[in-house]
Amino acid sequence: MSDIPALEALKQALRRLPGVGPKSAQRMAFHLLERDREGARLLAQSLTNAVERVIQCRRCNNFGESELCGICSSPRRDVSLLCVVESPADLVSLDQAGVYNGMYFVLMGRLSPLDGIGPEELGLDRLEALLDQGEIKEVVLATNLTVEGEATAHYITDLVRRRNIRATRIAYGVPVGGELEYTDRSTLARALSGRREA
Amino acid sequence: MSDIPALEALKQALRRLPGVGPKSAQRMAFHLLERDREGARLLAQSLTNAVERVIQCRRCNNFGESELCGICSSPRRDVSLLCVVESPADLVSLDQAGVYNGMYFVLMGRLSPLDGIGPEELGLDRLEALLDQGEIKEVVLATNLTVEGEATAHYITDLVRRRNIRATRIAYGVPVGGELEYTDRSTLARALSGRREA
Repeated sequence: MSDIPALEALKQALRRLPGVGPKSAQRMAFHLLERDREGARLLAQSLTNAVERVIQCRRCNNFGESELCGICSSPRRDVSLLCVVESPADLVSLDQAGVYNGMYFVLMGRLSPLDGIGPEELGLDRLEALLDQGEIKEVVLATNLTVEGEATAHYITDLVRRRNIRATRIAYGVPVGGELEYTDRSTLARALSGRREA
Repeated sequence: MSDIPALEALKQALRRLPGVGPKSAQRMAFHLLERDREGARLLAQSLTNAVERVIQCRRCNNFGESELCGICSSPRRDVSLLCVVESPADLVSLDQAGVYNGMYFVLMGRLSPLDGIGPEELGLDRLEALLDQGEIKEVVLATNLTVEGEATAHYITDLVRRRNIRATRIAYGVPVGGELEYTDRSTLARALSGRREA
């Protein structure tokens, strides 16, 4: 099939999507060409449109279509609470839980000295400037439970406490609906060490 | 995140790809916007380009960028052999096996009366016209081993034999590297009934 450059190029481009290998890329390309050319046109437009319009909020780094994202510009959000997450996807998941009504700060990564990602690369100076404005009373750390996520949380906790602002970490433990029998050891250890009065 | 229409539209459009649900669509959208905007632009271009350029061969239905596809216009192919497959993906797989050097006819589907797909919808009149040209000496049936694929193979076998052309079916049996112990019953039944002299 090397005689069809436009098809080859499409397969290659589809492989830039996460989780898409050569077989899936071929399946997607054939599906669109055989059965959904309208979908292909729509996807092309949506990609171009999103790349042109979606920018990062200058306050929290979250995605939006204006300088301040929907959350940062909302009058119904509690500006005294700031939740720090690694990615926009984490923000979406937390916000959809529906119990948090504060602001966010999206790191767009985590501290990772081996990959050359230090405090500057994460824009922690902008986080510090935010903390210095005096509105924030509590910073909720919601980085992932990886070595790097934990290191990032510790580093930010220091920045926060140095300013006499409260720093908290979201709870880690047995997930709702999870059975103790099938829960891994580290999670159980967290659940035990994080126990509270019943 | 309903305040970002361009992002929502992109997620919806990504879901038109086969095998992509809401979570994968979000992951893909965030990946492109966070880390690979160049890839997003490239994908948009490739989609538009493929939809504009890739057409179906007027002889075999295979994809190509000109009226006759690369295989149909190749002088090195054996025009006395015609292999009938259901889809362009099947054609690619068979051709990559590297032992077949004849022509193809791509059905772009299979007979499925319940879905309103009869001989006309499959363009079998065009297959018949091809058979009537007198060049073809053998038709190799390579439809899938489903009820509909089998019915399609039987129907085409009749068309072929009526013209005194040889009709053959590719072999089904234990795959190379497969172990008898872990091979399913229907495949073993096929392997036994299709046995040949050692």
